[in-house]
Amino acid sequence: MRKEIGITAKKSEDFSEWYTQAVTKAELADYAAVKGFMVLMPYGCAIWERMRSFMDEELKKLKHQNAYFPALIPESFLKKEATHFSGFTPEVFWVTHTGDNELPEKLAVRPTSETIIYDSYSRWVQSWRDLPLLINVWNSVLRAEITSTKPFIRSSEFLWQEGHTVHESKEDADREVFTILELYRRLTEELLAIPVLRGYKSDQEKFVGALYTTTLEAMMPDGKALQMGTSHNLGQNFSRVFEIKYLGRDGQQHYAWNASWGVSWRLIGALVMIHGDDKGIILPPRIAPVQVIIVPIFYSDDDKERVTVKIKELVEKLKQERIRYEIDERTEYTPGWKFNQWEMKGVPLRVELGPKDVQNRVITLSRRDAGKRQTVKDDEAIPHIKRVLDEIQEHLFTRAKSFLDEHITPANSYEEFRSLLEEKKGFVKAPWCANQECEAGIKQETGATIRVLPFTDEQISGKCIYCDQEAKKMAYFAQAY
Amino acid sequence: MRKEIGITAKKSEDFSEWYTQAVTKAELADYAAVKGFMVLMPYGCAIWERMRSFMDEELKKLKHQNAYFPALIPESFLKKEATHFSGFTPEVFWVTHTGDNELPEKLAVRPTSETIIYDSYSRWVQSWRDLPLLINVWNSVLRAEITSTKPFIRSSEFLWQEGHTVHESKEDADREVFTILELYRRLTEELLAIPVLRGYKSDQEKFVGALYTTTLEAMMPDGKALQMGTSHNLGQNFSRVFEIKYLGRDGQQHYAWNASWGVSWRLIGALVMIHGDDKGIILPPRIAPVQVIIVPIFYSDDDKERVTVKIKELVEKLKQERIRYEIDERTEYTPGWKFNQWEMKGVPLRVELGPKDVQNRVITLSRRDAGKRQTVKDDEAIPHIKRVLDEIQEHLFTRAKSFLDEHITPANSYEEFRSLLEEKKGFVKAPWCANQECEAGIKQETGATIRVLPFTDEQISGKCIYCDQEAKKMAYFAQAY
Repeated sequence: MRKEIGITAKKSEDFSEWYTQAVTKAELADYAAVKGFMVLMPYGCAIWERMRSFMDEELKKLKHQNAYFPALIPESFLKKEATHFSGFTPEVFWVTHTGDNELPEKLAVRPTSETIIYDSYSRWVQSWRDLPLLINVWNSVLRAEITSTKPFIRSSEFLWQEGHTVHESKEDADREVFTILELYRRLTEELLAIPVLRGYKSDQEKFVGALYTTTLEAMMPDGKALQMGTSHNLGQNFSRVFEIKYLGRDGQQHYAWNASWGVSWRLIGALVMIHGDDKGIILPPRIAPVQVIIVPIFYSDDDKERVTVKIKELVEKLKQERIRYEIDERTEYTPGWKFNQWEMKGVPLRVELGPKDVQNRVITLSRRDAGKRQTVKDDEAIPHIKRVLDEIQEHLFTRAKSFLDEHITPANSYEEFRSLLEEKKGFVKAPWCANQECEAGIKQETGATIRVLPFTDEQISGKCIYCDQEAKKMAYFAQAY
Repeated sequence: MRKEIGITAKKSEDFSEWYTQAVTKAELADYAAVKGFMVLMPYGCAIWERMRSFMDEELKKLKHQNAYFPALIPESFLKKEATHFSGFTPEVFWVTHTGDNELPEKLAVRPTSETIIYDSYSRWVQSWRDLPLLINVWNSVLRAEITSTKPFIRSSEFLWQEGHTVHESKEDADREVFTILELYRRLTEELLAIPVLRGYKSDQEKFVGALYTTTLEAMMPDGKALQMGTSHNLGQNFSRVFEIKYLGRDGQQHYAWNASWGVSWRLIGALVMIHGDDKGIILPPRIAPVQVIIVPIFYSDDDKERVTVKIKELVEKLKQERIRYEIDERTEYTPGWKFNQWEMKGVPLRVELGPKDVQNRVITLSRRDAGKRQTVKDDEAIPHIKRVLDEIQEHLFTRAKSFLDEHITPANSYEEFRSLLEEKKGFVKAPWCANQECEAGIKQETGATIRVLPFTDEQISGKCIYCDQEAKKMAYFAQAY
């Protein structure tokens, strides 16, 4: 692949340029020749596959099944749910021809699959005994992005999973929405070490066609929020237009209730932004494709043999413990060059092994997150490596959690609100009258939107930050990606 | 889901109707509302995922990595390799607009990814140290099918994997082509119990833009061949037009060599066709999502308790042995109804467990392939189940192998050739002068194409079956899907 040199931008000085370099130089992703699109490179794909395996296994435990639905959706399907259609139409890629022939009806390259899936469900669901119907799909969706491409965060195509479920009642759909939200929380907090705020979206910000949307929001180092995943109760909006009816336990026909939910490769972007530093990305051990990189160091053939034997011993033990490792045996690069490259690629732990280490029966470890170098006795190596990997996972989470906590600031006046959003940024917590006009006014004047309305109503202190009328909710505002 | 009744068509009488019913009533796939497209249902998806896991694991052992490339390909990319373009253009779905805006250049929904991938490779490959570059992609491709849809076999979109590799030399690319072909053989013969013929495609039938194509061909019960997978050496055709050059060990710039290869969900169609019977599909145990279906039988609460305890014991042992099982505890259906349904879904082995079995310390087993019912002592249950699963796997393969062998017939004259293709069908083996005009003539007059040219040149006996000139190859002709 391309031979890398270090990242030339500083994270604290030019965050946007730093991000692009961190992503491309770690070889997570590359720009595609098609405007707005990106290529998921093997290293990025290995991270995505780890997320996917975790989710897939957990979803199957929760009795979900995978399926696959067509990539092309007739315009008439999208039109059936009017708000859904108006929400997605401007960014749809339209197929109008096959070969030289014009199609009788244009087809959308799927921007999301509710409509095509619910069309099938209308035939599959007949009785309460068919419910709940719990289906998940791993695919890609396309939405034309007018603004500039930012790998993982903003691109015209992204990989994701979309879950589409059918239930007997609103309560059952609610339960599904929150079960999945909790799974997403585990994915982001426990695997990716990214702390999140959870809550409802405002009606303005919810999924087009949903009854309500729940969300997980993380805070990026530049003070902008990033939506990490959403889980929607769609009510009976889609089942009414797609005629998803079932014979109830009461012998009557009922419209079913739907939930839908998704997370995408955007989470990889969040990983990079939150944990990375000027040297490159930093991967939490639980998601890292390579947890330990082993760099042999030798200058003579004699040394080489001894070092190789020692590495073989170590590797046997790592295998037994299912620790993911790689040995960098390339001869064309110096150890120093290799150190830099693996740091850029965010491998959490580095083992250096040279003739002196062999002689002293030790190995030398370097933590990617703390940069600390440590010498450990041979026979303590494995327990030590396991402990340090756990520590790195925890440290990355704790560090991100502190940052998040420090970036939730209450505002007592609109003046303070505006200056917070301009200077400190992050989440600004403020009372809100629940009026869409105030929300729109704030957005226009500050660029901030309501990211989260907490589930448990906090005590509402004060009047609406914008109109000074009675407040009905506490809202977390932020500028966002 | 939909409540099924049995298959109403006989496999031997109306193969096409039988196939459609077998696929849809087993709930492998459903027709989509979009013409030409199908939905992969959860049960079919579980089969696909098992194939995918096998392939993915083996490919990773062979040092391949996964990646993901854009779904949309600019027309100019497809045009770069002229024969490739002319081969695919008639069946391309073209995106011409995003929202209301016409695109400056139309984009193809990927019919295959050579061009978009090689564009990236031209930037990624610089030195011989970057080679081999071994990348695989799991995605879907779209090719407009004018003829009527046949789930898994003929549809406008299909799931597959496409491998795209870059090598230093023709020999390295050759090796890759054959390594993958052998992996495909293991997939089809060892997992799916489908025997295949392997060989080259003729120039007429090879992949558009390839130096040569290797193929695996299976024989369906109606005497038509089905292409199971292909592995191509693309020579330097694409590297020349996409400028994939590398600095060689000799210090000179060279064009790289490419291979590409793919298998699709069409293999599921072959599974159904080859192994199924009038009761439905039959799944070889190694690919079956459910290997053992357990049907409890009881008429009183007392019975229920005893049966349930016994099933729990059995299930613990099945788990230990990683045998995939399911228990059908539905109360709304009779055991007989359940037997029929699971037979339709092709589960290889059924366990019935009633109060008498509990009393006699036995379980009753039924083989899906042979229909035999057998009573086995409790303490022999697990070894017996394991043995029978192996036997079923082998039996299905052997049966299919006999059928294949019986359907390879040599032809000594063109008259015999034609009558074989009209009556007995199957593969007809005949000498061929290697002239495309004879191949075309045969196709026009009989509908048969050259499916395979064997790797090891068999003794060429006689003159070209069509023109009576000197024969240069032995060719296997057949009508095909």
